[in-house]
Amino acid sequence: MILFELDENCGKPKSRQISDLLADRMKTGLLKPGDRLPSTRKLADLLRVHRSTVALAYQTLWSLGFVDLQRGSAPVVRSRAPLPEASERERESALDWDRVSSPATGDLYRHAPLRTVQRSPSPPRGWISFEYLRMDPRLFPMEHFRTCLGRAFREEGTSLLGYGDPRGHEGLREAIAARMGTHGISVTADEILITNGAQHALDLVLRMMAEPGKTVAVESPTYGDILPLLRHYGLNIAEIPLKEDGMDLDTLENICRKGPLHLVYTMPNFQNPTGITTDQPHRERLLDICSRFGVPLLEDAFEEEMKYSGRVVLPVKSMDTGHRVIYCGTFSKVLFPGARVGWLAAHPECIRRLAVLRRYGELSPPVLLQAALARFCSEGHFERHISRMHRVYRKRMQTALAALKRSISPEWAAWTRPDGGYLIWLSMAPSPPADWEDILASEKVSAAPGYTFYSSEPTGVHFRLSISSLDEEEIEEGIRRLGRAFGKVYERKG
Amino acid sequence: MILFELDENCGKPKSRQISDLLADRMKTGLLKPGDRLPSTRKLADLLRVHRSTVALAYQTLWSLGFVDLQRGSAPVVRSRAPLPEASERERESALDWDRVSSPATGDLYRHAPLRTVQRSPSPPRGWISFEYLRMDPRLFPMEHFRTCLGRAFREEGTSLLGYGDPRGHEGLREAIAARMGTHGISVTADEILITNGAQHALDLVLRMMAEPGKTVAVESPTYGDILPLLRHYGLNIAEIPLKEDGMDLDTLENICRKGPLHLVYTMPNFQNPTGITTDQPHRERLLDICSRFGVPLLEDAFEEEMKYSGRVVLPVKSMDTGHRVIYCGTFSKVLFPGARVGWLAAHPECIRRLAVLRRYGELSPPVLLQAALARFCSEGHFERHISRMHRVYRKRMQTALAALKRSISPEWAAWTRPDGGYLIWLSMAPSPPADWEDILASEKVSAAPGYTFYSSEPTGVHFRLSISSLDEEEIEEGIRRLGRAFGKVYERKG
Repeated sequence: MILFELDENCGKPKSRQISDLLADRMKTGLLKPGDRLPSTRKLADLLRVHRSTVALAYQTLWSLGFVDLQRGSAPVVRSRAPLPEASERERESALDWDRVSSPATGDLYRHAPLRTVQRSPSPPRGWISFEYLRMDPRLFPMEHFRTCLGRAFREEGTSLLGYGDPRGHEGLREAIAARMGTHGISVTADEILITNGAQHALDLVLRMMAEPGKTVAVESPTYGDILPLLRHYGLNIAEIPLKEDGMDLDTLENICRKGPLHLVYTMPNFQNPTGITTDQPHRERLLDICSRFGVPLLEDAFEEEMKYSGRVVLPVKSMDTGHRVIYCGTFSKVLFPGARVGWLAAHPECIRRLAVLRRYGELSPPVLLQAALARFCSEGHFERHISRMHRVYRKRMQTALAALKRSISPEWAAWTRPDGGYLIWLSMAPSPPADWEDILASEKVSAAPGYTFYSSEPTGVHFRLSISSLDEEEIEEGIRRLGRAFGKVYERKG
Repeated sequence: MILFELDENCGKPKSRQISDLLADRMKTGLLKPGDRLPSTRKLADLLRVHRSTVALAYQTLWSLGFVDLQRGSAPVVRSRAPLPEASERERESALDWDRVSSPATGDLYRHAPLRTVQRSPSPPRGWISFEYLRMDPRLFPMEHFRTCLGRAFREEGTSLLGYGDPRGHEGLREAIAARMGTHGISVTADEILITNGAQHALDLVLRMMAEPGKTVAVESPTYGDILPLLRHYGLNIAEIPLKEDGMDLDTLENICRKGPLHLVYTMPNFQNPTGITTDQPHRERLLDICSRFGVPLLEDAFEEEMKYSGRVVLPVKSMDTGHRVIYCGTFSKVLFPGARVGWLAAHPECIRRLAVLRRYGELSPPVLLQAALARFCSEGHFERHISRMHRVYRKRMQTALAALKRSISPEWAAWTRPDGGYLIWLSMAPSPPADWEDILASEKVSAAPGYTFYSSEPTGVHFRLSISSLDEEEIEEGIRRLGRAFGKVYERKG
């Protein structure tokens, strides 16, 4: 006989409690194939529940293959293949997955630190981390976004949970086009493809153009997470030295002269990792070089909105009458990353090719989040949020620059003074050999090591400081710790 | 002087109205570079708003590059590059995007019907469409999902809008592992990778293993949207004829003997497009062949949950002690597609490689939707929804099969009798040449033409009927129309 009690307060529906308990007994062999379960009426009486509750539980057991049901008679336990033992599960695969994988995947896998496949870890308690470029969750506009989500749900109904347009939600593309208009870029919704964040945008562009042996020019240092992708696609990387005013354009021009170049990748604003912003003449000459040599330009404007001091400089895309520029934007670095919404803006001929790759790669992005974001923009929340972020981060950046001046001797390091964004680049003076990671750890502070932003071996030691998720007090304390750590290296020297 | 009025009722924030109106005047030249705007106090008095409202508007104009601001003095209009004219925008790109694209992208683009990059069109008014495999939006559990979303928002806070784990939300992976357990598959959350739907899952697997010249075996006919992907990755396609009881295993074995095969792709339940389900012995022999020849098996179980009649058959993955099977599941074909959540389950060595590809391809999927879905599962909504779907679609399928028997002569066509899912495959008898699309259109009914599910030219005419988004009345009327349309072909013959 079946003996068990239902728990009124566990929050699990009663029919589910019944089916789970019965399934457990079948798995452990207390109920065996051929055993007959009580009729719905009998079990309902026994457990003091409605017959329909038991019927639902039996239906579930049937649909899971635990019992055979026949109209009018009690369910009979079926024979199911035994579950493999845990020991069996943990043993080696009969396949060598390195041989199943392509060399391109194997390379990416071997060079990816394991932590990259997990959520980036929080710093240990008591540490201050300048390591990651992530918005401060304390600044997420939770309530406004939730309101927009709720309103979309009420007003737009089931279309929010259906398939969407592979190019992305039309209302959001229009809001983005309008937003780009305020930066001097004239595009329509048809020239925009919504992507799952900026990384996805880069992946789609590389996937579109990649053939082994093609060459892509990048700033050196550059965004660390594009380098493994370039290698994965079999592309050659031409590193163009980054000077104080941006990519060295003489070097770029020489490279264009020597052989075919297939893409130039640049971050004109608050470059990652250096924080450098190029000026208008630099942008004009860069576009001119690309025009003369017929090279498409990928403008990564991941922090376009985060210009909070200095003169405004127009995006390269705003001058792009020849439609050579593929512009990449994202909400992740000014709003929050969790909507996974970035975009590409380019000539419709380019966008259509990218849209086909997205279509066969994953059909379409989630409508619900895009619809909520479109409302967030059209109702003015986005602009207000940007203004707030400018106020907050202008002060944080000023605090950081002042603290650096106080805590770090100019004989130890030089650093950039960004007009926006979150990133400061420290270039360390020559020093005796030092285990930098250990030395920073001794002061419970961390920063992104510079070599991760270079394809080849860099000269000198660098750190990228991200102030994106630290408040002013944390920034000041963190930089004091950096000062003490660096002192251990350089004062030992002196 | 600036003359305009604010609109109390337009819903647009006042500061935004002010910045928009001023920006418009700058764009049209009414305000020119060098012009000085009124002080915040003066404009605030004039418009009867608070000074901070004007200050916010000026801040916005500054951040958009329209004005220069200096503390204490009025803003001055800056010179901005003129927006390119519409005529300039529409002209040709200076680049030939076919030459920028790789041949693999070009092929995909040229062979993709243009409509595939847009949302699939709704059928014209008055039509009945059996064409698309999409859940009926009338059955979406809107309220329960919205409740789960709201509860997640209240209880989980900012982590919902941050970056997530590239492998997917842990709670959801656990819920999926538990769900798979009820189908006899024993996996942990570490053996699961959440994907952006099943198409993304297929793309990741192919991306992992693809090298030009490798060979993938598929059922013939098979899922139409995997064929362009296989070609895009340069893979050879080995079409294995599908018989009434599934893929012809003798042919598969012969192909394995002749040369290296690198993947077998199969849909054991309610196969797309035929609706055929293989039996236990067929599954065992399929796995045995893969084991003997060392070939990984991609089991696409896109409708695993939709078994609503007949005996339960266990997934191939449940017998996979050698970890050769990569299992693909999705919520899109039983719940709704809008969460864009599918998954892959495989040996951890395989999952880690796939996770690295996802990580560099787009970082991580949206936490919010996954967290809501995890709640939807753990609170029992998913199981109850499945039971409901079984009741609804069992009746719809019975209705469809009865209607086919009434309306379509066995001399015109033969069709499958699926035990679950949404798909029926019609194989038409030989007929005089006919423009099938036209003939169906004359009765305002549509079905998916069979040739889209074959890599090579099929023999004979087939149609895939999807009953996924039609109710019983629509199914009956639609099949009557099919009968009349087919009559025009076959009675002309007789």
